[in-house]
Amino acid sequence: MPDRSDRGPLTYEGAGVSIDAQDRALAEVKRLAKVTFTPGVLSEIGSFGGLFTLEPENPSGTVLVASADGVGTKLKVAQMTGRHGTVGEDLVNHCVNDILVQGARPLFFLDYFVSGRLDPGVTVEVIAGVARGCAAAGCALLGGETAEMPGFYEPGEYDVAGFIVGGCRRDRLLRVDSVRTGDALVALPSAGLHTNGYSLARKVFFELLGLEVDDEVPALGCTVADALLAAHRSYLPAVGPLIDAGLVKSAAHITGGGIPDNLPRALPDGVGAEIELGSWDEPALFRLIREAGRVPEDDMRRTFNLGVGMILVVAEDATGVVLEKLGPHGPGWAIGRCVPGRGVRFVGEQRA
Amino acid sequence: MPDRSDRGPLTYEGAGVSIDAQDRALAEVKRLAKVTFTPGVLSEIGSFGGLFTLEPENPSGTVLVASADGVGTKLKVAQMTGRHGTVGEDLVNHCVNDILVQGARPLFFLDYFVSGRLDPGVTVEVIAGVARGCAAAGCALLGGETAEMPGFYEPGEYDVAGFIVGGCRRDRLLRVDSVRTGDALVALPSAGLHTNGYSLARKVFFELLGLEVDDEVPALGCTVADALLAAHRSYLPAVGPLIDAGLVKSAAHITGGGIPDNLPRALPDGVGAEIELGSWDEPALFRLIREAGRVPEDDMRRTFNLGVGMILVVAEDATGVVLEKLGPHGPGWAIGRCVPGRGVRFVGEQRA
Repeated sequence: MPDRSDRGPLTYEGAGVSIDAQDRALAEVKRLAKVTFTPGVLSEIGSFGGLFTLEPENPSGTVLVASADGVGTKLKVAQMTGRHGTVGEDLVNHCVNDILVQGARPLFFLDYFVSGRLDPGVTVEVIAGVARGCAAAGCALLGGETAEMPGFYEPGEYDVAGFIVGGCRRDRLLRVDSVRTGDALVALPSAGLHTNGYSLARKVFFELLGLEVDDEVPALGCTVADALLAAHRSYLPAVGPLIDAGLVKSAAHITGGGIPDNLPRALPDGVGAEIELGSWDEPALFRLIREAGRVPEDDMRRTFNLGVGMILVVAEDATGVVLEKLGPHGPGWAIGRCVPGRGVRFVGEQRA
Repeated sequence: MPDRSDRGPLTYEGAGVSIDAQDRALAEVKRLAKVTFTPGVLSEIGSFGGLFTLEPENPSGTVLVASADGVGTKLKVAQMTGRHGTVGEDLVNHCVNDILVQGARPLFFLDYFVSGRLDPGVTVEVIAGVARGCAAAGCALLGGETAEMPGFYEPGEYDVAGFIVGGCRRDRLLRVDSVRTGDALVALPSAGLHTNGYSLARKVFFELLGLEVDDEVPALGCTVADALLAAHRSYLPAVGPLIDAGLVKSAAHITGGGIPDNLPRALPDGVGAEIELGSWDEPALFRLIREAGRVPEDDMRRTFNLGVGMILVVAEDATGVVLEKLGPHGPGWAIGRCVPGRGVRFVGEQRA
């Protein structure tokens, strides 16, 4: 654990994650990867999922959309709590959402599960969650690697990563370049932190507030563990039919980096986004973290989803039908619009 | 690190890896995965790579072959040495070989790289190795996840996993059921330990022999680091053309579990293998580990490749042409034959 004073506001950098260093290395990684690209590669790294086709000349051939993810330090909460059943769903749903925003449906998934010494019960509990997530997404759990690395992980610790491959007809891929100024932005609610911001959230709950995982948090109406282990939501059932109906132009999965870093990935050059802070009630969990950690607003926005798990870009006149169709899956809302410029501008006041 | 006496013979279980516990949990994982299988799945978990097709009805359609792997505690040696350039190649080549033995050629690769706090230099060095391995295999590095998990990994430690997808025409897949009693087994030499047996090997070199990574080992003619960091060999250039020429019936990548656990995966029910111990000179590295660690022979065989990185099953009368074609890539040799029965029987005496 990094040594750090408890005084002063908490930021994600202070909690041990250096976003800028990560950015610099990622730029070099991107350059290295590009050198390997073959004619089948249709995307650059940096999209939510990588695109590959076996038929580079076929405009309506199948495109494979692939993504790799981990669960991050949410695992620490699972390990503190001894509840390992949901992190597998977190992993699968994160991957499912990453390829969904490109227009793809899951085909198959592989996992990588590693611990110092394999605890058969924990292993099976984690993979059962992976299998449950896969089954819900109609995705085959095609294989995986279960590794023991003695001396690498402390007793009771493990890491888990996942890889998904989905498919989409090339002419049905969601395309950032279909987005125009004036298009509407429709938000879907998240279920808690999903899988981002846990280094900071753990500092707040376990160090600043001095809570234990099983403590009740009156402001949240549940225990710390319940709040922090809520499973990453899959948007496939809600958003899949909208994509099939041709109602979605582009979409952003709101993960690490929050709305400011993820929404622009769904927008073309010259198009920015205006987000109406007053359009939703921020869940109490985020307010608690902000206040207890004295976290600056910009850090909150770059670290957490703030209650927004996915943003769809839709034609302005399609907003009504999109909201209507989302209803049965848990209501979405109009969160803003596409404007000339670049990046994300927050306007208005957050509702308390 | 597990606490353990230095006296008595070293076994892989003693070094902290429980193969039986892993087997029990893996059987349950396999059952859980099967529930998720969709009509596109052509394999059961347990093959070297999972098989998926978008065209279940097409006997000559493209089959996707996918595999996930890690590097294991070979990473510890890289981290002790500060040489991070080869573990990426280890990772890619391991994956390339896993799908090659099904008949598939690499299409794309994704990596998962995780550390406590991202060291940009180390990250780039590792991923550069991944990119180099991908480029050599004609495989696109399509994406990946680079994660910081503060408090999970000690400073200087990282883990890396990889995920490959390859392709093969369904009617060109290597098929275990094409193997007959009397078929010949052709071995290809490994380059050191590849990525298996490092928990045990590290105990021998660093605890029993008390060596440092930069110490010269006269019996090996190189330093400990040079011996232990030799890159996992890719068999694609040597074996790919043999598969294209229809000369290979089936093949086994010799990884964790050694010849006894991996070769049977390339054989049908009712067919076993007889391995001639006198057919090759065991590399000095394995002899040194066996003797210094007083490792029982069965543990040696279930833990290490013993100089054999891949075994091809070929028609008996094709052995000559296969050996001739392998020549320019480093000679292979006839290591044994397929016999009635099951499992692997070692015959004769190992050459010193």
